[in-house]
Amino acid sequence: MLKNIAIIGSGSWATALAKIFSESGIYISWLVRNRDQAEYIRLNKRNPRYLSYAELDLNFIRPTTSMEEAILHAQLIVLAVPSIYLKEIIQSINKDWIHNKAVAVSIKGIIPSSGSTPGLYIRKYFDLREPVLIIGGPCHAEEIGMKRNTYVTISGEDPVWVKKIADSISVPYIRTVTNNDPVGVEYVSILKNIIGIATGIASGLHYGENFQAVLTSNSMREVDSFLSCIHANRSVYDSVYFGDLLVTAYSGFSRNRTLGKLIGRGIHVSHALQAMEMVAEGYNASKELAPMLSDLNISLPVINSVYRILHQHANPFHEFKLLEQQLC
Amino acid sequence: MLKNIAIIGSGSWATALAKIFSESGIYISWLVRNRDQAEYIRLNKRNPRYLSYAELDLNFIRPTTSMEEAILHAQLIVLAVPSIYLKEIIQSINKDWIHNKAVAVSIKGIIPSSGSTPGLYIRKYFDLREPVLIIGGPCHAEEIGMKRNTYVTISGEDPVWVKKIADSISVPYIRTVTNNDPVGVEYVSILKNIIGIATGIASGLHYGENFQAVLTSNSMREVDSFLSCIHANRSVYDSVYFGDLLVTAYSGFSRNRTLGKLIGRGIHVSHALQAMEMVAEGYNASKELAPMLSDLNISLPVINSVYRILHQHANPFHEFKLLEQQLC
Repeated sequence: MLKNIAIIGSGSWATALAKIFSESGIYISWLVRNRDQAEYIRLNKRNPRYLSYAELDLNFIRPTTSMEEAILHAQLIVLAVPSIYLKEIIQSINKDWIHNKAVAVSIKGIIPSSGSTPGLYIRKYFDLREPVLIIGGPCHAEEIGMKRNTYVTISGEDPVWVKKIADSISVPYIRTVTNNDPVGVEYVSILKNIIGIATGIASGLHYGENFQAVLTSNSMREVDSFLSCIHANRSVYDSVYFGDLLVTAYSGFSRNRTLGKLIGRGIHVSHALQAMEMVAEGYNASKELAPMLSDLNISLPVINSVYRILHQHANPFHEFKLLEQQLC
Repeated sequence: MLKNIAIIGSGSWATALAKIFSESGIYISWLVRNRDQAEYIRLNKRNPRYLSYAELDLNFIRPTTSMEEAILHAQLIVLAVPSIYLKEIIQSINKDWIHNKAVAVSIKGIIPSSGSTPGLYIRKYFDLREPVLIIGGPCHAEEIGMKRNTYVTISGEDPVWVKKIADSISVPYIRTVTNNDPVGVEYVSILKNIIGIATGIASGLHYGENFQAVLTSNSMREVDSFLSCIHANRSVYDSVYFGDLLVTAYSGFSRNRTLGKLIGRGIHVSHALQAMEMVAEGYNASKELAPMLSDLNISLPVINSVYRILHQHANPFHEFKLLEQQLC
């Protein structure tokens, strides 16, 4: 069982992870952004900005602003930062520090200007022998803060580590699922954010539930086609694939859906991005991933429509009229 | 192109169909329940009880209370009544009246004490050479009443008739999709009502979005397993399959979801049924279908849980705790 882990990141999802692991009796070195934040957490037992309604158990959580200190005694390092900050953050990690430790990522985005998923990027950056582990699933941090029943999937190629992490999580409202397809899991978690933007745009354009269902089921076809293209074996109905897609497509919490909704309502993409308080991973994912996917020669009308709206100045109304003709 | 059709039934879905076909310039003989209703429609251009906010074009719609009159000049007979009334209603149809006419059903339920889908039941009852046509898809009648973008699927084994109906519908907010798998389409439209009850129960039990996503994606696995069992070729991502499932699972309009929600909140099944103003097809579908499906030897944990709650007095809370362990 795990005893000590490091969590890198202090947004809402990192806070939810700190809550889950600490309530499982695992000691956490938590790398937060600055001393003020660390001090606030120590004094108030909560993160000042994210999931601030969730009380954190400081018997198991030690906030720090030193990467070396955070990693020092950890058996497992969990990276949970927006993908745009990952490059910078891992530059402060000395490769020797992570020797013999497992690395997990829980980031649903593409690393800017790399075209790479976080897991693949980190593996290459540190020249790791094994793929990093992925923590995924349909998990709104907000609901974990409210202790609502949630399935968390641990994915990796090393079954020993996967089981170790899964077995270490013992919180009544969390169920852990294991999975051996970290690459597929990561890609789907990124694609679903683009799809979340699509359903948000539809909502902003005042399409109703009938159309949202058509859009979502057709989007699932795109995800399945993509997975079939990169590898054959997968069970798309496991919650880490389609569950994750659905929680975003139909969510009241999703930032990606919110971004799409603003754009659908006619707000210019750049203004909509400014209006967002948190990072909508789907924006950059679309920019990096859509051009790469065009080489795969699979039909991706929803993903391509979002790309044209976000990055090629296509008008959402007209673009969705064209998209309508490609759905069935 | 179609010129004259009969619509049998006067609930919200039948009213939506009358609206779609009449706005396409097709003359409709509309069999309604009684003279008062027919008179009200003639005077007020709207159905008194269902979708009463939708104005109907009486230049193309002629309400009647005579089955013979309704069918007389129709090229196509569309049956859109709750499944519990179908047996009785078709007894008033003389087989000679439907000679050389096409029959379509748009009923998402099982015929009581028959274990049969409406389409299969009608085919057998009238000893028809060909399967009847199915009109399906993710179509809340309420949204059609509001002219919101909707995809309607025409399914049948006779491509000429399928195309004829699809091409005859020409309303700006309706897109028609054709399909050649009427049996699969009908079964999925019935299974999704059972799944709608399941997501309603989850909601009533205060599960959140994270769990709803797990429940729905795992339910999709059950539908896929069932379809794979009855025949190999299908594209589950077409809106008539998973789209229809999603519109019910995530709906604000679905009666089945509403029924489930009441039961999840702790209201006894019999009282919840009484509280419903309209028929929740999933209740009876579960009763008839779940025992039949057990012979197929496929894993159907969601469908079986709903069956135990609705028909075997299982406690929803405890049943869902057991179900949680079977989802992934």
